[in-house]
Amino acid sequence: MRVLGIDCGSERTGYGVIDSDGSLHRMIVAGVIRTSPRHAFHQRLLEIAEGLRALVREYSPDTAAVEEVFYAVNVKTLLKLSQVRGVALLVAAEAGMQLAEYSPLEIKISVVGYGRAEKCQVKLMVQSLLRLPEAVESEDASDALAVAICHATRESTLRRLVQPV
Amino acid sequence: MRVLGIDCGSERTGYGVIDSDGSLHRMIVAGVIRTSPRHAFHQRLLEIAEGLRALVREYSPDTAAVEEVFYAVNVKTLLKLSQVRGVALLVAAEAGMQLAEYSPLEIKISVVGYGRAEKCQVKLMVQSLLRLPEAVESEDASDALAVAICHATRESTLRRLVQPV
Repeated sequence: MRVLGIDCGSERTGYGVIDSDGSLHRMIVAGVIRTSPRHAFHQRLLEIAEGLRALVREYSPDTAAVEEVFYAVNVKTLLKLSQVRGVALLVAAEAGMQLAEYSPLEIKISVVGYGRAEKCQVKLMVQSLLRLPEAVESEDASDALAVAICHATRESTLRRLVQPV
Repeated sequence: MRVLGIDCGSERTGYGVIDSDGSLHRMIVAGVIRTSPRHAFHQRLLEIAEGLRALVREYSPDTAAVEEVFYAVNVKTLLKLSQVRGVALLVAAEAGMQLAEYSPLEIKISVVGYGRAEKCQVKLMVQSLLRLPEAVESEDASDALAVAICHATRESTLRRLVQPV
């Protein structure tokens, strides 16, 4: 399966595309869509939508995986984040992709095996699971890869569970 | 000027298009985009985007006017609302439209002249300002018209203020 992980943010939206058979994961591409601070917020949303659409066109992922919005950040950030998330979900729907959502806890447990893992631990495990020579530089891209890996692992476990013995 | 007012909601998104010279307003169309409760949230976002895009294509408004997200509703509602709002802002950006945002207080003061006006008072004033034979049935459509009227009035006041005497 091919999964596009998205880490939403109005300034930087991380993305990571992986191919996976459920246990072996391979990174296809990862990076960050940066929006211009000089632009109005709705124009930044357009930049994010166009960036994501270009990825979908180029890599044809089956599923988009995103983090559930969490409530711990401050309200202003939460509102901006949710609006970006709405745009990411729309792009997935436009492309007829499946959508999977995971909490930060689920992602950490899936990738590190520990729900309270630090950001640097997630980064190291992403590097290790994708057998990369070095860690992905951007935290946003690494977080996007983490949610993609989380989805690939979960899906494969589910498939094995429903298969007749 | 032609203004598209949008009242965002994941189940029902109200819209209202008006033509205005700043003091006289004329309703062109108003209604509600209803999304299917059987569909996943990202598909509902797509229904809203497609509904708004169809309006933009048909009526070519210059500006989209939306209510600022307010913090008083519960967090789950706020998150859904913000994601819909992100989609509405994206549609405005895609069409190269201006975007105007007003707080509920600004809208009520502009339409009713009183910031703590009840919903029914807003509805009556919308009917009166648009010289409609009866009130717009849907509250969502009426709220969308209210934000459109608020923008038209504000813009015209601003233009008069910057005009040389």
